[in-house]
Amino acid sequence: MLVKIEGAGVCATDLHAIDGEMEPAGLTLPIVLGHESAGRVAAAGDLVSTVAVGDPVLISPPHTCGLCVACRRGRDMMCAHHQFTGLTVDGGFAEYVVVSERSIVPIPAGLDPASVAPYSDAGITAYHAVKRLSHLIVPGSTVVALGIGGVGHVGLQLLRELGAGGTIVAVDPSPQRRALAASLGADAVLDAIEVPSAVRDLTDGHGADLVMDFVGTDDTHAAGLEMLTRGGTYSIVGFGGVVTMPSAAMVGNETTIVGNLVGSWIDLWEVLQLHARGRLTLKTEIHPLEAVNDVLAQLREGEITGRAVLVPNGREPT
Amino acid sequence: MLVKIEGAGVCATDLHAIDGEMEPAGLTLPIVLGHESAGRVAAAGDLVSTVAVGDPVLISPPHTCGLCVACRRGRDMMCAHHQFTGLTVDGGFAEYVVVSERSIVPIPAGLDPASVAPYSDAGITAYHAVKRLSHLIVPGSTVVALGIGGVGHVGLQLLRELGAGGTIVAVDPSPQRRALAASLGADAVLDAIEVPSAVRDLTDGHGADLVMDFVGTDDTHAAGLEMLTRGGTYSIVGFGGVVTMPSAAMVGNETTIVGNLVGSWIDLWEVLQLHARGRLTLKTEIHPLEAVNDVLAQLREGEITGRAVLVPNGREPT
Amino acid sequence: MLVKIEGAGVCATDLHAIDGEMEPAGLTLPIVLGHESAGRVAAAGDLVSTVAVGDPVLISPPHTCGLCVACRRGRDMMCAHHQFTGLTVDGGFAEYVVVSERSIVPIPAGLDPASVAPYSDAGITAYHAVKRLSHLIVPGSTVVALGIGGVGHVGLQLLRELGAGGTIVAVDPSPQRRALAASLGADAVLDAIEVPSAVRDLTDGHGADLVMDFVGTDDTHAAGLEMLTRGGTYSIVGFGGVVTMPSAAMVGNETTIVGNLVGSWIDLWEVLQLHARGRLTLKTEIHPLEAVNDVLAQLREGEITGRAVLVPNGREPT
Amino acid sequence: MLVKIEGAGVCATDLHAIDGEMEPAGLTLPIVLGHESAGRVAAAGDLVSTVAVGDPVLISPPHTCGLCVACRRGRDMMCAHHQFTGLTVDGGFAEYVVVSERSIVPIPAGLDPASVAPYSDAGITAYHAVKRLSHLIVPGSTVVALGIGGVGHVGLQLLRELGAGGTIVAVDPSPQRRALAASLGADAVLDAIEVPSAVRDLTDGHGADLVMDFVGTDDTHAAGLEMLTRGGTYSIVGFGGVVTMPSAAMVGNETTIVGNLVGSWIDLWEVLQLHARGRLTLKTEIHPLEAVNDVLAQLREGEITGRAVLVPNGREPT
Repeated sequence: MLVKIEGAGVCATDLHAIDGEMEPAGLTLPIVLGHESAGRVAAAGDLVSTVAVGDPVLISPPHTCGLCVACRRGRDMMCAHHQFTGLTVDGGFAEYVVVSERSIVPIPAGLDPASVAPYSDAGITAYHAVKRLSHLIVPGSTVVALGIGGVGHVGLQLLRELGAGGTIVAVDPSPQRRALAASLGADAVLDAIEVPSAVRDLTDGHGADLVMDFVGTDDTHAAGLEMLTRGGTYSIVGFGGVVTMPSAAMVGNETTIVGNLVGSWIDLWEVLQLHARGRLTLKTEIHPLEAVNDVLAQLREGEITGRAVLVPNGREPT
Repeated sequence: MLVKIEGAGVCATDLHAIDGEMEPAGLTLPIVLGHESAGRVAAAGDLVSTVAVGDPVLISPPHTCGLCVACRRGRDMMCAHHQFTGLTVDGGFAEYVVVSERSIVPIPAGLDPASVAPYSDAGITAYHAVKRLSHLIVPGSTVVALGIGGVGHVGLQLLRELGAGGTIVAVDPSPQRRALAASLGADAVLDAIEVPSAVRDLTDGHGADLVMDFVGTDDTHAAGLEMLTRGGTYSIVGFGGVVTMPSAAMVGNETTIVGNLVGSWIDLWEVLQLHARGRLTLKTEIHPLEAVNDVLAQLREGEITGRAVLVPNGREPT
Repeated sequence: MLVKIEGAGVCATDLHAIDGEMEPAGLTLPIVLGHESAGRVAAAGDLVSTVAVGDPVLISPPHTCGLCVACRRGRDMMCAHHQFTGLTVDGGFAEYVVVSERSIVPIPAGLDPASVAPYSDAGITAYHAVKRLSHLIVPGSTVVALGIGGVGHVGLQLLRELGAGGTIVAVDPSPQRRALAASLGADAVLDAIEVPSAVRDLTDGHGADLVMDFVGTDDTHAAGLEMLTRGGTYSIVGFGGVVTMPSAAMVGNETTIVGNLVGSWIDLWEVLQLHARGRLTLKTEIHPLEAVNDVLAQLREGEITGRAVLVPNGREPT
Repeated sequence: MLVKIEGAGVCATDLHAIDGEMEPAGLTLPIVLGHESAGRVAAAGDLVSTVAVGDPVLISPPHTCGLCVACRRGRDMMCAHHQFTGLTVDGGFAEYVVVSERSIVPIPAGLDPASVAPYSDAGITAYHAVKRLSHLIVPGSTVVALGIGGVGHVGLQLLRELGAGGTIVAVDPSPQRRALAASLGADAVLDAIEVPSAVRDLTDGHGADLVMDFVGTDDTHAAGLEMLTRGGTYSIVGFGGVVTMPSAAMVGNETTIVGNLVGSWIDLWEVLQLHARGRLTLKTEIHPLEAVNDVLAQLREGEITGRAVLVPNGREPT
């Protein structure tokens, strides 16, 4: 299928790719980046049955065969024949993208493709990570979100929507992002300084039941583990540092540490249903595709709040 | 322990008891009814360690030994040595009640006992039933609540709080109760007439993924099963009729039918945490304890919206 | 794909089909029956990638599109575009069958196709039903299997393999089948007479935690519900009668009733892995395909122990 | 309650205690060690209702109040008022022990107390750890047990009993322990040398779905993580080293790391039911209590296969 792109989100992983750090994941430069793409079907082969030309669609970046054991189990991001649109094959910082029907998610009526493009990766990554652990978010529990950026501001809302009433604490060094977190329903908002002790103060000395780390540095790894209560879970979405803990402490505190890959096709479909019902907000800022390098530089400097979306010339949403 | 009662909710089960229908459950008349009781600790034995005289408390009605296998598993409403305050031993339509420490749930600071008394039964019954099946409430799913009375109006809110973004449909013949449902966040509100076909219309012909029946008559049993989609679940809280379905249809549609007893101590504790955080609303109307017979008559006539709470003379909340 | 059939199991559903009772499931006569088929790939289209000509394969009877929400979730037997090989399209009581690649499950090395053919339906039906409820089978629990026929004798073994140490009771009126049950690991074996009271005797008066009904008549429905303990689950695989229970009893006993459809592709794949490791035994008797009508008559008379498999002339396993 | 000891298992944690490493866990020397104790009730207070003088019992070492939120949830080893018989209060290397009724587990008829004493800690630790992750052990999966000592040889059997048919690989440098593992049902047995590559060879290059580490050194932590497949889980029971992994690898491989505390009262009860049904074997060697220091020295040298049990003079099992 050929998809005419109307918008593609810009992600920190694009910076990792540019910096040459994604070779272990199968990336060979040069490549057209852009793994959060949305647009409309421009052309489709005879066998395509679930969408028609002109339909608004998201592109789920993981390629999936539909025939291997992982795909059959619904864990299609673990497909035995993995590729990733925008990292290992050409992606959405472009006018058009070619994909298989299995990568297409129809966008519910009334939604503009560019405005939901970032769900293709930021959305399913956050959704997959939160859904796996949502059973831990019960009344009386405390959950901490570290980093309220592109993925984190979606994750924060999902802690509220998929969880069952825990207290949600948002942590970010940026005042703009803390304000965003407060507006999205965080019960408490903290600067990144002295966080472990601040979390203990909020929880009668016990610590957090669940920490979701959307940043992933040596500092956040250490702080995330330090602020857990007994039986607590530290879940990693952003990455970069090294996780270190003596096993005596892991056993004595019954600590769990979870790494999270991107989500599945069904995760993306479910995120879109939530958004269409008004339960999720996606904070985006639109830039022309030509400004891609400026936007990447801004992202590197931490100057983007929410998600930047690149739109090809003349396709701005109306 | 001796608890000075400040409020006790009036439940349809009290009518069943008066009508002599609760003998199979171990009830022998005469007895002091009232199984949704709240007040303050008036006296406590030496071994009591978790509350002090003067503390505001709820009385969880199921007696639990804490030593049998069911109690050890946290399913204490299945305790091998079961009694029930207000049904098999004297309850809260009274000035004082005597209970074991195991039946006491501390009320979070700032809440008035009478205003949360109905959670003792209506709350945990709804909470237990919804929590067991909350994994079925995912984005894209549809849930129907039949009956928005004392238990149902709590259950409706819990479908929203414990679920993960399904569409919630509330059904009640009373316009007042439908208005209450709409104000509590139902996505659609239906009169009880022609409900199965109305639910199919709302779901592109598929039917509901989950139906919670807070009424329990022959009519609601038939309608509840009829409005399910394939793989759907019909869950029964209110009771009275007979459930009937050919097994060929149960197999062909992969139907599940669930009966729900009252909840556990931890269910009641979790409901109170949700309420204290402002995620739940309890609709109550206060009456003097002396008016107990009038209130029971009103309940029988369906004239109570939400829950009536009986308050002993001079203990009205301020 | 074209599959050369080496064996096809004969199922009670074939009798339902012949008797005209499967029209609600989409069956229109005449049709070639046979929904438990196995053989070898005889020809495959260019796009087929997971098997090659000559490979031994099972045919999973439900057709699945791989693109709808149910398929994406791994619940492919709920596919939006459902057909069923051997009931709604021509099946395996034949020399050859045409199927899509999505319906093919490779048979592990060393297994003869005819000897595992019945897993295609009897296997996944039993596996799906037991797997859904295997969390109920814990040490100290009691599970009852009603009916040790084609599906039941597989289900009985799966209660042992997927469960975690419950006591397993097998019930069947046939002495041959009771002997089979004992040889397959049942902890107790009962005739079908006075079963509810016998089960209570075996459980200190409590009753069973789980009853799996592989028969499905009015009698087994009544007996299955009667022998449950509080909080117990009655699960239906065989069908034919009417399930009836007052909701007061369902609530008071916290009863769950579950209907089970056929299983998914992954269920069939997992059953084959279990069999290949020697954890499952399939009791089969081989008949020539030409004897199909005699075999159906024997099945109707209850004269088959385990599963009859029809083999086309000259393809007997060596 | 007063329990007359008939046997107490000797555990590696006793060595940690002697070496002064258990102070963070609340241990202050001197103390009577022995946290795997069994015997008979010698005297009981008036309020004791679940056992009588003379009954054979195990002593579950964690003290539990039965009233806090953790106890109410059935996670009683997380009790807010924690003590541990044999580590923070006097234990079973003695003639008699004093405990609360909540710590007592009745031993099923026909079992000798000394022969099951080690379940009190080795049993519930293994059971708790395996039960939490048993849903990962499905047909087609591979599970590795590192270390087939006192806890490990129970854990190995539980991987088989609680799991659903995965391939089980046992690893130990001792030939005696490898022989024990083979006799207890391991599908493959490996020396500790070159284990990660050997596990990849056994799994077509994929690696293990679950690794249970019953040892816990820097070496086993590194090897355990290295031998995982994508989406795999590394679970820690034995402790001592430091767990280290870059978060990029944890995310890219979707790795989970789990620390496990001791189990709950219900875990111990369930282990005993399994043993009573003949599904578990406990490898023990009986020594007189007076030989405690010799036995501890043997344990330190790795010369115990299974578990040593100390028996007070004159109480040898008959």
